[in-house]
Amino acid sequence: MKVTLNRSIFMQELQTVQRAIPGKSTMPILTGVKMELTPEGMYLTGSDADVSIETFLSKENEKAQMQIEQTGSIVLQARFFGEIIRRLPENEVTIEVLEANQVSITSGKANFIVNGLSASEYPQLPEVNSQSPLRLSVPLFNQLISETVFAVSQQENRPILTGVHFILENDQLLAVATDSHRLSQRIIPLESQGQQFDIVIPGKSLVELSRALSENEEFVEIAIMDNQVLFTTATMKFYSRLLEGNYPDTRRLIPTNFETSIEFSVPQFLQAVERASLLSNEGRYNIVRLSITEAGVVLYGRSPEIGKVEEKLNYEKVEGEPIEISFNPDYMRQALRAFGDTNIVIHFISAVRPFTLEPTEGNGGFIQLITPVRTN
Amino acid sequence: MKVTLNRSIFMQELQTVQRAIPGKSTMPILTGVKMELTPEGMYLTGSDADVSIETFLSKENEKAQMQIEQTGSIVLQARFFGEIIRRLPENEVTIEVLEANQVSITSGKANFIVNGLSASEYPQLPEVNSQSPLRLSVPLFNQLISETVFAVSQQENRPILTGVHFILENDQLLAVATDSHRLSQRIIPLESQGQQFDIVIPGKSLVELSRALSENEEFVEIAIMDNQVLFTTATMKFYSRLLEGNYPDTRRLIPTNFETSIEFSVPQFLQAVERASLLSNEGRYNIVRLSITEAGVVLYGRSPEIGKVEEKLNYEKVEGEPIEISFNPDYMRQALRAFGDTNIVIHFISAVRPFTLEPTEGNGGFIQLITPVRTN
Repeated sequence: MKVTLNRSIFMQELQTVQRAIPGKSTMPILTGVKMELTPEGMYLTGSDADVSIETFLSKENEKAQMQIEQTGSIVLQARFFGEIIRRLPENEVTIEVLEANQVSITSGKANFIVNGLSASEYPQLPEVNSQSPLRLSVPLFNQLISETVFAVSQQENRPILTGVHFILENDQLLAVATDSHRLSQRIIPLESQGQQFDIVIPGKSLVELSRALSENEEFVEIAIMDNQVLFTTATMKFYSRLLEGNYPDTRRLIPTNFETSIEFSVPQFLQAVERASLLSNEGRYNIVRLSITEAGVVLYGRSPEIGKVEEKLNYEKVEGEPIEISFNPDYMRQALRAFGDTNIVIHFISAVRPFTLEPTEGNGGFIQLITPVRTN
Repeated sequence: MKVTLNRSIFMQELQTVQRAIPGKSTMPILTGVKMELTPEGMYLTGSDADVSIETFLSKENEKAQMQIEQTGSIVLQARFFGEIIRRLPENEVTIEVLEANQVSITSGKANFIVNGLSASEYPQLPEVNSQSPLRLSVPLFNQLISETVFAVSQQENRPILTGVHFILENDQLLAVATDSHRLSQRIIPLESQGQQFDIVIPGKSLVELSRALSENEEFVEIAIMDNQVLFTTATMKFYSRLLEGNYPDTRRLIPTNFETSIEFSVPQFLQAVERASLLSNEGRYNIVRLSITEAGVVLYGRSPEIGKVEEKLNYEKVEGEPIEISFNPDYMRQALRAFGDTNIVIHFISAVRPFTLEPTEGNGGFIQLITPVRTN
């Protein structure tokens, strides 16, 4: 294998696949990046066994200025190789596989000779065949991820809850995540697709996918087979394993009746919650208390060691019965951040029943649920 | 004590004194910030016992919009207090000491009540009296620090080497730091001052001082007494303890004769050293080798596990005997960074004797020295 190409274009490809490459691995070859040079261009692959990314840099891409002298393949330790490419003196780099998997990297007067590994030892990517992949716009899909993935469980005791549950049926895509203390659910209507699936994708994979997609293509195609999902754009293939097991039936958790409702501007309410949580985050318990009475709406935070805070809140509208309810301010902050700069309505049933949060201008497509904390 | 003032101006003062306030301390009161309100304005003090910073916010400062209702003093836990001030909703904050050292912090509709400590329990700052302090421009003094402080020892086995040695005599100020493997020395000529001193200031203090000075006044005054040094600007007093003990006589370490000299552009040479150190930093030893022969000037780096790099170097001028010399690339990188974007000349005696680095356009005012690594 011998190729000369533009260093910064190559660097971008490397950075994309490096998202999947672990710093350490029980399979050392996975800390490497696989390069495969064909007459059409270069494939790069990185993988941590759960997530795999493959990019293709075409010879037709003029910015790459690729001169292919000899096809072939090699695996190089990804972190070093990336550092070397980054620090080379000239805009052009020549990569040549010598004998015994040694690789020469040349740019200007600088020459590196580094030890590689045979590409034949690199694991095969899973095969994913799907007759009719689901096609989504990248901004919409990234929004779907950011609205749900924060609510997955960080605990490993119920592994299925560390993923986001995606259900495609009846021409709509539902995504839901819950750690059993809070839940976030988004439903997107789709033009008639005919397909259906019911899968759980690891939260970590979705976070990496979202980062890898952001500078990328307009559309992403989603194909599923056995225990894998493949996201394809024009320049990248992103594979993730799926979580196995039954995701709990969350649809019945969302209440429909309520006793009290209040409407807030998200940025204003978020700042007040952040102030109240300054003290509550320090104590033995992490609780903020919201009081809705005829005298006003007040938020309280308290740490026995440090002190207390109270703030009379601005709100847009309030309806129903007075209520006092305590909640974990971290859940509330993450929920509010997922809404962005909008107005929301919070519906309460009682101090001990989960409450819901929805955009005021929503149509039921996005709903979050938080379980309150019992304080006595 | 009760005062109302502009929140962002107050925040700036807090951030300055917070540089000296430790996150943890065997004396818990030192994790607090002391506020003292006088009819003239507010003094803030932070200290970790080694370094103390006092600022003064004058009532005359119009931006502070200070309304003093009652003088007094209090100590508040600095990290929380800073977070509270930062997150308050309005531009104005009112701070009032209630009974039993409780403090009310109010801004808009948000009210915090936090526990403080009596200011009478806060340690007194050291008294420094100096009839005629040394006056230096802040940019020049910051340059002096950045050119020397990186070379102090990070090891505690010879505590005196963790400081920078300052000698004021014969109308010049000499600053030198060494960790016994490398040395950096700067001499600044001064207009006739009459004073003299010979002190060692902890490197950590100088780093904090340099940060605290950067947005500050044009001049800094340096006064010394017993085991303390006081740096005074128009708005800040910065105290540091001095290191006790005898600093080694470094002046005799600097060689004056040499066999080989080579002139480099610092940015070009630095980049080559960084490339060569990519591999050498990974092996069991951390060495880069420079070879100056009639055939050319070449830099080599090598890691038995990963591979090797060699680069033929661009240089401005070379004189004297051929030489092969090995050195720690970390020392070289730090030395080169201290020179900035200029040309330097490196003088060598032999492969086992320290070599010197000086700006080509220098007049002996700035010199660095690195001890080579013996490779066989």
